[in-house]
Amino acid sequence: MAINLANRMSILKASDIREILKVTQRDEMISFAGGLPAPEFFPVEELAYVTRRVLQRQGSKALQYSTTEGYPPLRKKIVERMNASLGTSFTPDEVLVTGGSQQALDLTGKLFIDEGDTVVCESPTYLGAISALNVFGARWAEVPTDDEGMDIESLERCLKNTERIKLIYVVPNFQNPSGKTWSLERRKRFMEVVSRHDVAVIEDNPYGELRYEGDPLPSMASLDAKGQVVYLGTFSKIFCPGLRIAWVAARNPLYEKYVILKQGADLHTATLAQMQVAEYMEMFDLDANIARIRHAYHEHRDAMIGELEKEMPVGVRFTRPAGGLFLWLELPSHLDARELLIRCLERNVAFVPGGAFFPNSNRENFLRLSFSNMPVYRITEGIQRLAAAIREMMADADCGTHREAAEAVPA
Amino acid sequence: MAINLANRMSILKASDIREILKVTQRDEMISFAGGLPAPEFFPVEELAYVTRRVLQRQGSKALQYSTTEGYPPLRKKIVERMNASLGTSFTPDEVLVTGGSQQALDLTGKLFIDEGDTVVCESPTYLGAISALNVFGARWAEVPTDDEGMDIESLERCLKNTERIKLIYVVPNFQNPSGKTWSLERRKRFMEVVSRHDVAVIEDNPYGELRYEGDPLPSMASLDAKGQVVYLGTFSKIFCPGLRIAWVAARNPLYEKYVILKQGADLHTATLAQMQVAEYMEMFDLDANIARIRHAYHEHRDAMIGELEKEMPVGVRFTRPAGGLFLWLELPSHLDARELLIRCLERNVAFVPGGAFFPNSNRENFLRLSFSNMPVYRITEGIQRLAAAIREMMADADCGTHREAAEAVPA
Repeated sequence: MAINLANRMSILKASDIREILKVTQRDEMISFAGGLPAPEFFPVEELAYVTRRVLQRQGSKALQYSTTEGYPPLRKKIVERMNASLGTSFTPDEVLVTGGSQQALDLTGKLFIDEGDTVVCESPTYLGAISALNVFGARWAEVPTDDEGMDIESLERCLKNTERIKLIYVVPNFQNPSGKTWSLERRKRFMEVVSRHDVAVIEDNPYGELRYEGDPLPSMASLDAKGQVVYLGTFSKIFCPGLRIAWVAARNPLYEKYVILKQGADLHTATLAQMQVAEYMEMFDLDANIARIRHAYHEHRDAMIGELEKEMPVGVRFTRPAGGLFLWLELPSHLDARELLIRCLERNVAFVPGGAFFPNSNRENFLRLSFSNMPVYRITEGIQRLAAAIREMMADADCGTHREAAEAVPA
Repeated sequence: MAINLANRMSILKASDIREILKVTQRDEMISFAGGLPAPEFFPVEELAYVTRRVLQRQGSKALQYSTTEGYPPLRKKIVERMNASLGTSFTPDEVLVTGGSQQALDLTGKLFIDEGDTVVCESPTYLGAISALNVFGARWAEVPTDDEGMDIESLERCLKNTERIKLIYVVPNFQNPSGKTWSLERRKRFMEVVSRHDVAVIEDNPYGELRYEGDPLPSMASLDAKGQVVYLGTFSKIFCPGLRIAWVAARNPLYEKYVILKQGADLHTATLAQMQVAEYMEMFDLDANIARIRHAYHEHRDAMIGELEKEMPVGVRFTRPAGGLFLWLELPSHLDARELLIRCLERNVAFVPGGAFFPNSNRENFLRLSFSNMPVYRITEGIQRLAAAIREMMADADCGTHREAAEAVPA
């Protein structure tokens, strides 16, 4: 039987990351692949306590249908935290609770993208955004970045010369996959430029609270005078991802459109899970928990960077993120990270090859390394094995195609 | 600012039902509007118990990311129940856990519908399916039904004469909104006809286990020799809706496409909620709980039908559903249910006007009455007030436009 599907299905395939994750769940694997938070910081006992309390106090209300916008006390708490730490001025009525940020991206695609519309993004950009928006037939305009964020001249050229731009998607803090963070100056110039265009900006900020050095910087939404920034936040990286609680903060008229789409997508996010998060925030100190996560990931990051500095051969470059979960490594341009992955899996080390993070180009000499989920001694061991595999690949390439390889290795 | 949205946004509006529900939450309102399950049957204490147990036994795994397909023990339990009661032969690997059936409908739209594709449905059909599929630009072909289900000759004509049919959407048990159930003979003839076409059938069965008389009938999926039926099931009406746990059962190649789309839509359904449902089914007797729900709704249904028979004036017709939550009432064709709603809200009675359940036609002389959520004495009182409002409207219509009205009243 050949049942006809929608045209969009011809371009979709399962995410590389999810497929890799499936083969990397063996205990002996040192996995730098997934963006899994370290489970030892999930407040398991506290969750049991708040669940009992919620069910005692709310009774059957916790298990009944509820409003599409979300549980009001949770929306209030979300807004209070956001406005205090990001300099924004959202109200609870501008917050929509979603089933993870991935759902917010899906709703964003529905809201803005007709087939062939363009999304402007950092190059590379978050794979989950690519897959969510590609469902709706998005094209992509990749803007190069430096250590301070998007290159503004390139952005201006792009905005001037590209047709049907509907969205600009950015991850200004500790970006996935690059680990880069935009400077304050760059944020201001970005908002200055985009405010001259009637285009929506999606500011995706899952990692903003996981900063290991330097001062927090204001969000794009706090610099937005005309209501064009849609802010995506989540509890996945600062609390626990398995409850699937995240949010969209947006001004009208955009906000009410998100609500209509959420209603058609799944009516509302689970009532009990929303109450659990709100009650946890009421009864416990979320910030103290975040501080513990931050402390651990800071150590992980330092261990990974320290070992990379010791072990990596000349010609390999990597970012030094000030926060977040990810670090981005660039191989000499003649080496392919997919081939490196095969060599690494043989050594029980996993990572995500970087090609999938470039929506247009096939740049295969990058890899994303996550440092959140492995203890320090395994990070050290894993980086040593990774370096050995890279040296082996370099040596093989030198033998095989000596001249080309030598030319391609950057200083 | 005028940010450009996707074209699809021009036809979307907030669901009438959700908007009506907002104004009907006052305590004095007798609401026949929402399809809310009766909260007194939600197992609140049991949920507290299973949550503690899940968190003790699974620990942080219950709060971590998990696989897109769903929690394996839950998928196993779902399949065992389904196959035992419906005559199907699905395996756990053919079950995808979704965030309510509404998400399954959304994924269905993504999987099958390009703008302008046609969905064949019963007339009237479920409003949530209309809104989920309209996002993707669906057109609708409504097929008339009688007391045994879809009229098969009309269906054959429709399949022959309509272009770009991608889906057939049916609710064979205690349909929302009509309350009608397909006979066994009709199910067989339907499957015979559709099996000659390469078209997917969506069998949406949220109410199948809430039968108050007669024997259960086999599902369409059990009569499906070629893997064209996609079955949608849910815990919302037999357990509790606030956890948002439902499922799709489908054969490959369709199943794996649903999984890819679910991954892009929200990665996976909340881990803890899936474990809570599985653990409840392990520790408690779900069937005994369903029996309690069935007993109560049976009484509600009898009370509503009894009072309607006593109170309704000549010219008003209504269905006598053998199960489910809803009953469908037809006014004389010159009366408009939206106007009746205004008169009823003044009397603190609410229902959903039927027009929105017809995706094409504007047939405004129908209303949907839900009997699940009100106790018997309020059902009796509410139907009396509804009847008074209808009699008043009839009298007004008689005075105003006597001749037309008299002609329009059916026997």
